[in-house]
Amino acid sequence: MKDISQRSTCPVSLSLDFFGDKWTLLIVRDMILKGYTTFGDFQQSDEGIATNILTDRLKMLEKYGFVIKYPLAGKARTGYCLTEKGISLIPVVIELAIWGSSFEATEDALNVAPKIEKGKENYIQQLKKELIATLEAKKLLISK
Amino acid sequence: MKDISQRSTCPVSLSLDFFGDKWTLLIVRDMILKGYTTFGDFQQSDEGIATNILTDRLKMLEKYGFVIKYPLAGKARTGYCLTEKGISLIPVVIELAIWGSSFEATEDALNVAPKIEKGKENYIQQLKKELIATLEAKKLLISK
Repeated sequence: MKDISQRSTCPVSLSLDFFGDKWTLLIVRDMILKGYTTFGDFQQSDEGIATNILTDRLKMLEKYGFVIKYPLAGKARTGYCLTEKGISLIPVVIELAIWGSSFEATEDALNVAPKIEKGKENYIQQLKKELIATLEAKKLLISK
Repeated sequence: MKDISQRSTCPVSLSLDFFGDKWTLLIVRDMILKGYTTFGDFQQSDEGIATNILTDRLKMLEKYGFVIKYPLAGKARTGYCLTEKGISLIPVVIELAIWGSSFEATEDALNVAPKIEKGKENYIQQLKKELIATLEAKKLLISK
C-alpha cells in the first residue's frame, strides 16, 4: 500500500488524494448503504473488485482511520466498521449517488432519488445515526 | 482517451466510472471555484497536472458533455466552459471541499468553511447561478 501524498493544500485535492479512485468509495458505499462488514461481503458487490485492490484499499482505510477492524466468530474472522471519520464520508457518497441517479442508473436498487424526497439532510442524518449506533453496539466508538 | 465503461448500474459506481480519479474533479474545481477557462490556466494549478493527463481528461469531459469549447482571441485560442451537466457536479465538489476542509487544509484559499457558514445550499445555488450566467453570456447554453 502506498502512503497518501498531498499534492497541494486545497481541500478538494486533499480529499481526492485519499479517495480519488474508482474503488475506495465503493467499499465505503457498501458499508454505508448495504451494511456490508466482511472481506467476502465486499467481494460480492456487482462491480467485481479484484482481491488485491480490495486488500490494498481496506489497508489504506484502516491505516488512515476510516475503518476499524473487529473480531468475528466463524469463518469470516474479521469485520470492518466505519469510524466517525469514515462516517463523515456519507455526504460525499450521497452526492455521488444523487449525481449518478440523475443520469442512467434509475432502475438500480441503490437509486437514492426516492429516499431523498423528504430532504437530503434528513436522509444523511438518518444514515449517520444508524452507523454511529452500530459503532456503539460494537463498543468501537473511539476518537480517531 | 478510453471510453467510459459502466461496471454496474449502481449510481455511486456510475459516478466513479466518470470521475473516480485524482484529476478530473480538480479540473472541474478550477472551473467552479477559480473561474479558470484555458488549458494554460489548468496547468497553473498547484497540483501540477501533467500535460497528457490534462489533455485526456478535457477530451473525456468534452466527449461526455461536461464541458464545451468556445473560441478565444489571442494566444489561447480555446476556452472551456462547464455545461449544465458539468455544473451539476457542484455539490460533489463542495462536499469534497467540506470534507477536506474539516481535516488538514484549513489555511488554503479554497477552504470553504467560511463560505458555507450561511448555509451550504445557498453557496451551491450562488455558484450555480454564476456559472449559468457565464454560459448565457457566452451564448453556450444548449441542452446536453
